[in-house]
Amino acid sequence: MSQSIAAHPDRLLPADPGTRNIARSLLERVQDLPIISPHGHVDAAVIEQDIPFPDPAALLVSPDHYVTRLIHSSGVPLDSLLGPLEAAQRAAQDSRSVWREFCTAWPLFEGTASGYWLRTQFHDVFGLEREISAETADASYDAISAKLREPGFRPRQLFKDFNIEVLATTDDPLADLASHAAISADPTFHGRIVPTFRPDAYLNIAHPGWSANVDRLIGEAGEGACGYAGYLRALENRRRYFVQHGAVSADHGVRTPSTVKLDAGEAAKLFDRARSGHTTPGDREQFEAHMLYEMARMSVDDGLVMTLHPGSFRNHHAPTFAAFGPDTGHDIPVAVSYTEALRPLLQDFGTAPDFHLVLFTLDETVFSRELAPLAGFYPSVYLGAPWWFLDAPDAMLRFRSAVTETAGFSRSSGFIDDTRAFCSIPARHDASRRIEASFLARLVAEHRVSEDRAHELIVDVVDSAPRRVFKL
Amino acid sequence: MSQSIAAHPDRLLPADPGTRNIARSLLERVQDLPIISPHGHVDAAVIEQDIPFPDPAALLVSPDHYVTRLIHSSGVPLDSLLGPLEAAQRAAQDSRSVWREFCTAWPLFEGTASGYWLRTQFHDVFGLEREISAETADASYDAISAKLREPGFRPRQLFKDFNIEVLATTDDPLADLASHAAISADPTFHGRIVPTFRPDAYLNIAHPGWSANVDRLIGEAGEGACGYAGYLRALENRRRYFVQHGAVSADHGVRTPSTVKLDAGEAAKLFDRARSGHTTPGDREQFEAHMLYEMARMSVDDGLVMTLHPGSFRNHHAPTFAAFGPDTGHDIPVAVSYTEALRPLLQDFGTAPDFHLVLFTLDETVFSRELAPLAGFYPSVYLGAPWWFLDAPDAMLRFRSAVTETAGFSRSSGFIDDTRAFCSIPARHDASRRIEASFLARLVAEHRVSEDRAHELIVDVVDSAPRRVFKL
Amino acid sequence: MSQSIAAHPDRLLPADPGTRNIARSLLERVQDLPIISPHGHVDAAVIEQDIPFPDPAALLVSPDHYVTRLIHSSGVPLDSLLGPLEAAQRAAQDSRSVWREFCTAWPLFEGTASGYWLRTQFHDVFGLEREISAETADASYDAISAKLREPGFRPRQLFKDFNIEVLATTDDPLADLASHAAISADPTFHGRIVPTFRPDAYLNIAHPGWSANVDRLIGEAGEGACGYAGYLRALENRRRYFVQHGAVSADHGVRTPSTVKLDAGEAAKLFDRARSGHTTPGDREQFEAHMLYEMARMSVDDGLVMTLHPGSFRNHHAPTFAAFGPDTGHDIPVAVSYTEALRPLLQDFGTAPDFHLVLFTLDETVFSRELAPLAGFYPSVYLGAPWWFLDAPDAMLRFRSAVTETAGFSRSSGFIDDTRAFCSIPARHDASRRIEASFLARLVAEHRVSEDRAHELIVDVVDSAPRRVFKL
Repeated sequence: MSQSIAAHPDRLLPADPGTRNIARSLLERVQDLPIISPHGHVDAAVIEQDIPFPDPAALLVSPDHYVTRLIHSSGVPLDSLLGPLEAAQRAAQDSRSVWREFCTAWPLFEGTASGYWLRTQFHDVFGLEREISAETADASYDAISAKLREPGFRPRQLFKDFNIEVLATTDDPLADLASHAAISADPTFHGRIVPTFRPDAYLNIAHPGWSANVDRLIGEAGEGACGYAGYLRALENRRRYFVQHGAVSADHGVRTPSTVKLDAGEAAKLFDRARSGHTTPGDREQFEAHMLYEMARMSVDDGLVMTLHPGSFRNHHAPTFAAFGPDTGHDIPVAVSYTEALRPLLQDFGTAPDFHLVLFTLDETVFSRELAPLAGFYPSVYLGAPWWFLDAPDAMLRFRSAVTETAGFSRSSGFIDDTRAFCSIPARHDASRRIEASFLARLVAEHRVSEDRAHELIVDVVDSAPRRVFKL
Repeated sequence: MSQSIAAHPDRLLPADPGTRNIARSLLERVQDLPIISPHGHVDAAVIEQDIPFPDPAALLVSPDHYVTRLIHSSGVPLDSLLGPLEAAQRAAQDSRSVWREFCTAWPLFEGTASGYWLRTQFHDVFGLEREISAETADASYDAISAKLREPGFRPRQLFKDFNIEVLATTDDPLADLASHAAISADPTFHGRIVPTFRPDAYLNIAHPGWSANVDRLIGEAGEGACGYAGYLRALENRRRYFVQHGAVSADHGVRTPSTVKLDAGEAAKLFDRARSGHTTPGDREQFEAHMLYEMARMSVDDGLVMTLHPGSFRNHHAPTFAAFGPDTGHDIPVAVSYTEALRPLLQDFGTAPDFHLVLFTLDETVFSRELAPLAGFYPSVYLGAPWWFLDAPDAMLRFRSAVTETAGFSRSSGFIDDTRAFCSIPARHDASRRIEASFLARLVAEHRVSEDRAHELIVDVVDSAPRRVFKL
Repeated sequence: MSQSIAAHPDRLLPADPGTRNIARSLLERVQDLPIISPHGHVDAAVIEQDIPFPDPAALLVSPDHYVTRLIHSSGVPLDSLLGPLEAAQRAAQDSRSVWREFCTAWPLFEGTASGYWLRTQFHDVFGLEREISAETADASYDAISAKLREPGFRPRQLFKDFNIEVLATTDDPLADLASHAAISADPTFHGRIVPTFRPDAYLNIAHPGWSANVDRLIGEAGEGACGYAGYLRALENRRRYFVQHGAVSADHGVRTPSTVKLDAGEAAKLFDRARSGHTTPGDREQFEAHMLYEMARMSVDDGLVMTLHPGSFRNHHAPTFAAFGPDTGHDIPVAVSYTEALRPLLQDFGTAPDFHLVLFTLDETVFSRELAPLAGFYPSVYLGAPWWFLDAPDAMLRFRSAVTETAGFSRSSGFIDDTRAFCSIPARHDASRRIEASFLARLVAEHRVSEDRAHELIVDVVDSAPRRVFKL
């Protein structure tokens, strides 16, 4: 195994020397642009309170399901990585032993996107110089721990060092957004932290907490109205609250992108049946499809960009879910289709002024078949950046290859890191910029785009697109 | 933005210098071969009467849904590009203002297949030298307009200059084919213009004009027979009429490739129910599937090559359809599968002598999974060239990569431009030839095919395949 | 056509000179490693009895459905290649005339995987120097025939020359495995030939011989128990018998990967209904899904690696099946999905110690969408190598590109040749090694994996992975 962890300046760029030269110059054009992160899962309180990061394992291993899942696949039980579900016990987990498991498992990450992000962090953020390995586990643990105790490694300083301009969080509709308010009132902090309205647990009847959530929602924001009418009013009110606190988008993690327009009477009946606990699976699908339609209607009204993340079968392995809870590495994609599913929504709102609908997918087959054709006609539809398992160098190139010939460059959202791993943000954006440079460099080398124009396009996709699409 | 619009001699060829050299020599081998266009949508009357092309916008923008859709996606209303549905008003559209919209939107087309075809036309056909832009809109409008008034820019002269040998049109089953007859009787015209039998509007019960169409069909060609028997007889007669006028193929634009063999009694009952307006969606699917089977049976009898274009959800956005009619940019693909759907047809006709069935798709997933395996066994089945959104450089390379390892080169149809944009025909065929050269050059560079053999293969796929598959 | 059949030392390696150099050195690292073939269809008796291979056509053409299907697609009737179904007549087929058909059809194989394997055999195994062609058909027939009469071309000598260490066969659950026993008792033979338990014809109620098979199974191995209980006991017993004879895996060629856990009572009722011949299609699906679950349970118990090959529509063309039987080139893939289908099995056994489940597919869409995410979490799940139509250079590269970024290199099975064509084994493994070298070389050239680490990884994927995954 190589002993050095150096990140090569040409990493991820194409091998052909001529194309690589073009890519280098394109990359240089955008390498120092600020990071715009319009969708992710960092906790605003961490920035607000400038909470120091914990130890290396709690920062880089345990909360990152990309990392724990692959170590788990090699036969390491999750409780060696996460601790059991109870928070107290999880905290008590021996961090150094988790780190050793990780270092031992490090060779598994060769060729993966996660491995790439981690390696870049080790080198660029934590200044490590030797390859991660079982032998050097204690040394790397100590080195990172030492860095984490330095004042320069507090979230606010890193935010600045990472050159982040905008960072979106993802929030419960009833969240008070106090951290967001405090940050934006703080004259000493120059970044922009915006909340995102994420109502899944209030829309999906099958969610175990749905009815209790709806109780709270109507109670807190229904203005005294009750039933379905109070429910809609409360959702509208909370969206407005989010807008007032700087939100630019509402995010929807649905099983399928199905939409349907029910009349208010039908919808109210479904809602009442659900509240009484007497719904069929068909009812639940209808209601969820209807509420997705309603969310689009509200976005047309209040201007929140609508982002859609469908097609993940959540918590595939029930025993793991029971022991460790959600987001523990066993959400597995399924096939999706958008053309017929989104038609009711697009018929009514597809050409609505200033409506933005960003479509993500874990099913690559829809890139050329459905998403590029939809985004190449409807002014509201944008192509979400390759997401989750597809946020990886080759997958990003496949995405560009699949969509560009139909939809060009103007219809995509720009990069979205979607991460809860704060320290990985620069590595992820850097990877994306390298891949954009690589793709454009190939088009230049093949005389399909002029080099001058490619220099404009890379600025557009890296910097202008996320501002434009997310109304930043 | 680059100020020159020059088309580089190596455009679309691979970046690796060694592979590019091989590709250049392969391209040279076929660059001057005549164009065979066995499927498309040019109007035969335009050639027959040598009708001068109208202004630049009416020639290059308004009728081309590849172009208008992408401009529409940027927020330009379609009536700025098309004019409303009424023909008179559409004609009254200010052509110069449409052209300005197009020129302003031109950067959207970077990296797209349409942009490539347009750029090639601007340079190679119209002799433009400066990049299209809002600033130069009037100048390019005037330059193209001036060209269009020259005698050398009349359709017949361009047909000759474009080196077109065969051009297929697409025609209504009741079309009199007078233009085709006139052309073939004209000793001064040396090209071959062949009609194509396209019966969708007579087979699809859900088509709004179906019953009226069937009335006319039986009335004109049923030889006095009525009902289902008269319907079949009339279809057979009209196919024969097309054969007599030089047709070589019948084309089917269906929602799915489902086929079923009903007995005549069942089929007649379905037909009668449909004529009385009392069918269920299931009936309609059964009838369409049965008629696709019947079309294959007739192709086995009369020798017309059967081409199948399934998987497009037509007129996705109802308000746009209501305002502007069909073919206005919002036909969106859906997933399709062929293996089970085509089985009834292939069981009975898959090995029928001289039956040719050319399968197209907008769903790339079937290239390696279904189409190559089917075409690599059934002597009747041919792989249609990448179609519509997939008629683009990277998509064509993905097609070749997906099918060749299973089915070789002998089972594909050769390039089909499928266009109503006459002036784009050379650019489209040129792009296809460059991609064939690129793909073969890679196989040569990887020592998978010898260079001598590649020179034979490129002639085969460019020239011999369409002649062989379409019986030209 | 090129007159020489020489196999270039750089064949299948990437064209870019820098990347090719890296690939060469990676290939060199593994080129001489022994062949591990953990799944295939060679007949053990051929090795045991060292049966001389028959003539060239009977060795290389008639039994190879990759070859006969493509010749058939060009219009050659299968009886010119196979003879009719009756064995006696098949034997009487004029071998030289089949060979001539093949040689005439040889250009069809340009660019195909089969063509590559054949060419490599002609050159490396049979020492041919001139290109195959109609003109040289008799000469190549005579040259290969002469070789086949040499003692050095008997199976045991070739086994040694091919450097095969392990070869798995595929066997009926009631096979006596006498050849396997004889081989392993033979001190003069140093290879390892292991049987594979393949129970499809005993699990799939729709199989024409199912009930008779079950009679025999229970009779021979049910230990006197009858009905469903006897059936399960017999399956367990026969699996144990296979384990005792060296088997390491059980293989399942199912239509879909659906699994379900029925309680024993329900399962017994379904079994009884099936035995009495009164099942619905729904019953049959339930039973097959349940038995797949049971097979996993038994694998957890007895340690046999479970391999799953779903998604082929067998015997698509009924007239060909009637005339020539199964495995005659018209098995056509269909879309499959694993995420929901395998959930019942994976819930219960996905993390069972030492359980190995190797998932194959003919539907590439599941590589990035489902298989890599599953294998990147479940310790039991391994990515089967690209199979059948996907066992081809470009398809293998697409596989690696689709799965590696999510699952790394540790979760794949290593190469599986799945062949009944004994003499093609070295060519197939060689192709796979070249592609692994090519893929890794690109990652090295793009600075994503260090060259040192790539040298370790290629040994792992070529040699260690199949030993580890198949418990060899």
